[in-house]
Amino acid sequence: MTPQLAELVAVDAGGTSTRAVVVRPPGRCLAYAVAGSGNPIAVGPETAAAAVVESVSGALHQADVPGTRIRLVVLAMAGASSTSVAPEIRRRLAGIGLDATLVFESDLLATYFSGTWRPDGYAVIAGTGAGAIRVEDGRQVAVADALGWLLGDEGSGFWIGRRVVRAVLADLDGRGRSTALTPLLLARLGVPAPSHAGDREPIRAVVRASYAAAPVRLADVAGLAFEVDGDGVADRILDDAAAALARTLTAVRSATVSGPVVLGGGIMGLGPQVAGRLAASCGTDEVLAAADGAVGVSVLAVRHVGTSVDAAVFDQLTSSLAAAR
Amino acid sequence: MTPQLAELVAVDAGGTSTRAVVVRPPGRCLAYAVAGSGNPIAVGPETAAAAVVESVSGALHQADVPGTRIRLVVLAMAGASSTSVAPEIRRRLAGIGLDATLVFESDLLATYFSGTWRPDGYAVIAGTGAGAIRVEDGRQVAVADALGWLLGDEGSGFWIGRRVVRAVLADLDGRGRSTALTPLLLARLGVPAPSHAGDREPIRAVVRASYAAAPVRLADVAGLAFEVDGDGVADRILDDAAAALARTLTAVRSATVSGPVVLGGGIMGLGPQVAGRLAASCGTDEVLAAADGAVGVSVLAVRHVGTSVDAAVFDQLTSSLAAAR
Repeated sequence: MTPQLAELVAVDAGGTSTRAVVVRPPGRCLAYAVAGSGNPIAVGPETAAAAVVESVSGALHQADVPGTRIRLVVLAMAGASSTSVAPEIRRRLAGIGLDATLVFESDLLATYFSGTWRPDGYAVIAGTGAGAIRVEDGRQVAVADALGWLLGDEGSGFWIGRRVVRAVLADLDGRGRSTALTPLLLARLGVPAPSHAGDREPIRAVVRASYAAAPVRLADVAGLAFEVDGDGVADRILDDAAAALARTLTAVRSATVSGPVVLGGGIMGLGPQVAGRLAASCGTDEVLAAADGAVGVSVLAVRHVGTSVDAAVFDQLTSSLAAAR
Repeated sequence: MTPQLAELVAVDAGGTSTRAVVVRPPGRCLAYAVAGSGNPIAVGPETAAAAVVESVSGALHQADVPGTRIRLVVLAMAGASSTSVAPEIRRRLAGIGLDATLVFESDLLATYFSGTWRPDGYAVIAGTGAGAIRVEDGRQVAVADALGWLLGDEGSGFWIGRRVVRAVLADLDGRGRSTALTPLLLARLGVPAPSHAGDREPIRAVVRASYAAAPVRLADVAGLAFEVDGDGVADRILDDAAAALARTLTAVRSATVSGPVVLGGGIMGLGPQVAGRLAASCGTDEVLAAADGAVGVSVLAVRHVGTSVDAAVFDQLTSSLAAAR
């Protein structure tokens, strides 16, 4: 390490927000800045790249560290490999005087390392999408599901939200059981309740609203399943989601890797209905909650420059990042 | 009826083709012509309207009947209500000298009347989409499912095709059972088989191909499930499809309506795996196969002008239409 190249930049580019931190190895977070969505699939490569660079610029400014001192930029981003976002980000980083090496990492691996410093273990993520990974020696060596809303993501926000809407439609047209989800969803969408038996206008309105947005936006109503208590239909949906995520975890299990299981993604934070059931089925006491993905990318950045991350470094990263927020 | 206004035009505008017939009441089909897709949701209102008018023009020419003699045009079309296709069709029909009243009918009801003349009964349709209707006194009085690929269409071509792709991905990444669908789908998509254990390139290629097309195009691979014999995974998919369609039928059942059950749509024609299982679960011996939807629209057209359709008229319509094809 030359004296001039000292700090690292770690960026977690997510669908909702992009967070950048400046890290001084081994484990001190100097600054933390936030920008908009950095998911190139959701907002396009240009907007995603702009969000990344905005967050990096903000963090550098806050840390009062010039871009020329940055040794490495590590960026966790879903879908980076399938878009042309990398050259766009390099170009824009150069524009703010940052020419350091840029490394892309899996957003799933960043989630894992936001919950633990241990180099071997598992993560199950259920946000808008869903998947599981196995981590060995700090690398993601197996992945299951994470196939997107059309083909997979079982137990994800999209998957739950779609089941919610289908259950409501089945309730409304008499194919399915009555559920407390129905008034909740109609209220959320601003659709009047049926005015008489056989009134199909609410069905048509729910269908219209659902097809009017991008399919993945069905994830927005997943939370309704967590809001109704003791509803058999909602319970079944969340039970099935937990079971699906457990199957996904099973697919990456290895008899020789017995580390912790990190649970991450927005669905895990909505209540114990999915995370608790999943944790109970993990077959280990070491079930950890993921934290800010920026912690995980910071761990990856520090590991990239050869620093081994132990419990003490992890704790320092976590607490200094929390203080910088 | 004035002497000048004598014949009727019946049009079945489907996703694959549009078929128009000229009918002389009570039941003689004079001509039959075919054009391209007339589904406004699939190809847009302009192209759909052009296909409708091309087929009508072809049938009139073949029948040697001027447009001024046409008393009524009846058009069965999915999604007509949700698009601006009606004015476009009226404008283009006027352009070929046809100013007759234009009536839109449900494509599901046209399927029903392609299989029977009886005014009371049921239809279950599984094509790219899926749904069931109850018919009373010649009118569609109840519908179940037919909610589109994102929210419903259980047991449809899309639904089966999506299950096929998911089963193959589960096979490829070790989450699911081995299935003969895997080599079939890889061959269909031109994707090389895995070159070594843990080779994820085939998974990525299948995922890329699936997201590259419109979601509903997954229906194109539904047929693979019918091609493998004695495959447990494919059997399960088709069993589930038949069960889903049976549930949809149950949702429109009425204790006071005991007519026939007409089975229609491309999936029913792919083999006995779905249609046979569904027929066995219908609880009636009167299970009929839908024919060309143009027969059903012809029945609807004839009924519209007050002619009652009995077995003799239905047989004449069916046989004269077959002869005109």
